[in-house]
Amino acid sequence: MNANNIQELKAIVGSQWVATEKEDLICYGYDATPGFFNLPEAVVQPGSKEEVAAILKLANREKFPVYTRGSGTNLSAGSVPAQGGVVLSTARMNKIFAIDPENWTAVVEPGVIVSELNAAVEKYGLIYPPDPGTVTTASIGGTVAENSGGLRGLKYGVTKHYVTGVEVALADGSVVEYGGGNVKAPGYDMVMLFTGSEGTLGVLTKITVRLVPAPVTRRSMIATFADLAGAGRSIAEIISNKIIPATLEIMDNYTIRTVESFAKLGLPVEAEAIILAEVDGDADTVEADAVKMEKILRENGGEVRVANSAQERDQIWAARRAALPSLAKLRPSTFCEDATVPRDKVPDMVRIVTEIAARNKVEIGTFGHAGDGNLHPTIVTDLRDAAEMERVYAAMDEIFKTALRLGGTLSGEHGIGLGKLKYMPDQFGAEGMAVMRSIKLALDPNNILNPGKLVGEVH
Amino acid sequence: MNANNIQELKAIVGSQWVATEKEDLICYGYDATPGFFNLPEAVVQPGSKEEVAAILKLANREKFPVYTRGSGTNLSAGSVPAQGGVVLSTARMNKIFAIDPENWTAVVEPGVIVSELNAAVEKYGLIYPPDPGTVTTASIGGTVAENSGGLRGLKYGVTKHYVTGVEVALADGSVVEYGGGNVKAPGYDMVMLFTGSEGTLGVLTKITVRLVPAPVTRRSMIATFADLAGAGRSIAEIISNKIIPATLEIMDNYTIRTVESFAKLGLPVEAEAIILAEVDGDADTVEADAVKMEKILRENGGEVRVANSAQERDQIWAARRAALPSLAKLRPSTFCEDATVPRDKVPDMVRIVTEIAARNKVEIGTFGHAGDGNLHPTIVTDLRDAAEMERVYAAMDEIFKTALRLGGTLSGEHGIGLGKLKYMPDQFGAEGMAVMRSIKLALDPNNILNPGKLVGEVH
Ligand SMILES: Cc1cc2nc3c(=O)[nH]c(=O)nc-3n(C[C@H](O)[C@H](O)[C@H](O)COP(=O)(O)OP(=O)(O)OC[C@H]3O[C@@H](n4cnc5c(N)ncnc54)[C@H](O)[C@@H]3O)c2cc1C
Ligand SMILES: Cc1cc2nc3c(=O)[nH]c(=O)nc-3n(C[C@H](O)[C@H](O)[C@H](O)COP(=O)(O)OP(=O)(O)OC[C@H]3O[C@@H](n4cnc5c(N)ncnc54)[C@H](O)[C@@H]3O)c2cc1C
Repeated sequence: MNANNIQELKAIVGSQWVATEKEDLICYGYDATPGFFNLPEAVVQPGSKEEVAAILKLANREKFPVYTRGSGTNLSAGSVPAQGGVVLSTARMNKIFAIDPENWTAVVEPGVIVSELNAAVEKYGLIYPPDPGTVTTASIGGTVAENSGGLRGLKYGVTKHYVTGVEVALADGSVVEYGGGNVKAPGYDMVMLFTGSEGTLGVLTKITVRLVPAPVTRRSMIATFADLAGAGRSIAEIISNKIIPATLEIMDNYTIRTVESFAKLGLPVEAEAIILAEVDGDADTVEADAVKMEKILRENGGEVRVANSAQERDQIWAARRAALPSLAKLRPSTFCEDATVPRDKVPDMVRIVTEIAARNKVEIGTFGHAGDGNLHPTIVTDLRDAAEMERVYAAMDEIFKTALRLGGTLSGEHGIGLGKLKYMPDQFGAEGMAVMRSIKLALDPNNILNPGKLVGEVH
Repeated sequence: MNANNIQELKAIVGSQWVATEKEDLICYGYDATPGFFNLPEAVVQPGSKEEVAAILKLANREKFPVYTRGSGTNLSAGSVPAQGGVVLSTARMNKIFAIDPENWTAVVEPGVIVSELNAAVEKYGLIYPPDPGTVTTASIGGTVAENSGGLRGLKYGVTKHYVTGVEVALADGSVVEYGGGNVKAPGYDMVMLFTGSEGTLGVLTKITVRLVPAPVTRRSMIATFADLAGAGRSIAEIISNKIIPATLEIMDNYTIRTVESFAKLGLPVEAEAIILAEVDGDADTVEADAVKMEKILRENGGEVRVANSAQERDQIWAARRAALPSLAKLRPSTFCEDATVPRDKVPDMVRIVTEIAARNKVEIGTFGHAGDGNLHPTIVTDLRDAAEMERVYAAMDEIFKTALRLGGTLSGEHGIGLGKLKYMPDQFGAEGMAVMRSIKLALDPNNILNPGKLVGEVH
């Protein structure tokens, strides 16, 4: 980039929306992923799709990289400007264009925060289900680009199950629109192609999402298990009994001990595993499912506490919500990893991760969405300790190899970005990667959009 | 194609699996779409993905078209070999590889018939929900390639909501695999890109689908309305009362009269509209929803009959199933069209289609999935009557323009193929089409796969 480019950016968005001072740039050099930082050359905050399109047109002509950034909370270095260029922040594009309570849809700009959308649709008895831990900070654009999940993924699915339309500014500065309020539409499924594309194919400038009725009621419970196998059997039996909890979470012993030592919630520090579960829906179904679920958990050796009040429910979920923050307090650096395995392999995965930690002499707490087979082995360490970091990276390699060996995937919801790029060929093979790269090149021939991420280098 | 190519095809699959006699070729020259026919030069029936890959490699080298064909039941000329070349039938690739009752998934070859999969998973209390009218004849490969819907789309969604993994032979003869049993996976959503791609991007050789628990019980009802507006209000109120019927169908007066004259089911031939609905799920919820739904239908002027036995239920759905066959008996040719509008525009669309029929002096019965906003205006005519056909095509143009004007899409479930190709730019614009074509070219640079379909000519 040169001074001229900066001038042109200012002409597009107004000079107050282009930052080039070092102290400003620093804030945009990293995201929530430890170990990744690079200074952008400028930060630009467009206010409309036309401005986004003009920025891309310029970048495409001058061939400088554009890193789209929502709230920068992602865990795979997806918004780090690794090769300089411009960070394009969507923070100003935060309008809710429309909520249609009849057709259960909402149309938003990408910078709308997830919880803001939920607050806006609540009065119609509707919810927008995707609920990453960062609902109060993450942007809808960021969650769509990452295909984010959350606690209620088992019953409700992930972000892709709610995106029905996208408007996208492409690398060449054209703006295209696919889908809309109706989930039934012909043509290549461009809506799904852009969803989860991590800012590498275009900049989302408008998003249409599907809403669903808020559940009438819910029932939560927590079960502690002396042995992991009992927790595993419970998960299998809950599902094979056709119960679909909204939430079905697991925490391993390391996580339990850590949460307890910080949050003092009375968790049993000797337990090999805790399962936290919630069923939601209509009163009768919830009641019936809760009774069945409690029975299954007990029969498999679980000590069960069912929440009988809103306060008791909050206590249960406080334990789960404390998992990542508590682990993060242990040591200076936290790598919250994210891998999936088939649901019935969850106990195996938890056990193997514990072995990997011991073998590599690193500290790992594992928790996550057991019902989805989506675990977050969280490595707590110190980035400044080179020797330990070597062991950390060795452990990571083993974790992802194990997930793939067990028939899983490299990420359930945190994306690939730069963080997990090196494992991609293990999942997709050279040919599978080549196809994805050919799509990247078809849409972004000059490789200006989040270059080097997700599908790696394409030239 | 030349004689050598045929010899090579025979070498790949065995000569008994290559047909070149005219009487054989004729059977593969058309599908369920009236007005489209062309002879292929050969029909080849591979027995494995390796054979499929070898056929594509040959076709790519020799640059002849390959038209993949499941059961040929599609309604948009998707499997018609419009430019000669080879029809690749998946009929022999009909193995169910695996059913996993614990993780609720199945892995099948593309030639498996939809109802065969349902029969195989029934004993586990599971269902595979996509249920086009052709469940007993359509192949899973064809339904995935068309992203087919069916009667229970409102609650259960369409085929894309169940496909979690695909193995695909590409134009260059490589075989790639994306996704698997877990719905949470990183990378571009290639599974969704191939789903609904109508055989233009690759040949599906293996498909992993998600299954769901069979509903415990169901309750059906039929409501007749003297005026369309009452039916429209009912649909809106059912949804805004947070009832999600599995099925919520509408039939217009023309369809009612036709069904009645053939099937003698005692339908009220003066009614402007009939709504047919079914709720399914757990006993209590179904009971409660059925009561609420009946009340809504009555309050809006519907005369309601609730099915109180399996036999009465069958009667209700016999009326719906008779719609297309009855219309088809009226005249020599039947164009079962397919367009979507936002759900609250269904009554407008039904009314406007009736006006379009009158204005153009053609006969149209409209029925369809009201809950999805997905209607099937069905034009009955005679292909041999050139004057009438001109009016038919004029009416079609108006129908699709209206659907788009009302905020809908060109197809809810029947696909684009050749049948609706000319309307595609109206929905996607030149730039939207260009992006889809760039993807087609990235994956199939020689344009051998179902050339000219869905995205049109690409060179
Ligand atoms: C404590 C914590 C808990 C978390 N819990 C969860 C969880 O439970 N589930 C989960 O799935 N994730 C979780 N995350 C990860 C993170 O919150 C999500 O990935 C979130 O969706 C990112 O949103 P964002 O607005 O911060 O996006 P960013 O981090 O700014 O960007 C993420 C990616 O999206 C791209 N992008 C952003 N906006 C656009 C746009 N408009 N157009 C195109 N591309 C765009 C960026 O280029 C980048 O590649 C958690 C993170 C933290 C720190
Ligand atoms: C009476 C009747 C009722 C119908 N009702 C419905 C309905 O309710 N809902 C609905 O959605 N549809 C309906 N249809 C349409 C039709 O049944 C569906 O489109 C069906 O999915 C087609 O399946 P098939 O096996 O016959 O595919 P085909 O017709 O053989 O092929 C359809 C398309 O898929 C491609 N294809 C087939 N197999 C593969 C493969 N393995 N890999 C890649 N591409 C492939 C073909 O090239 C073609 O483009 C109906 C049709 C009829 C005649």
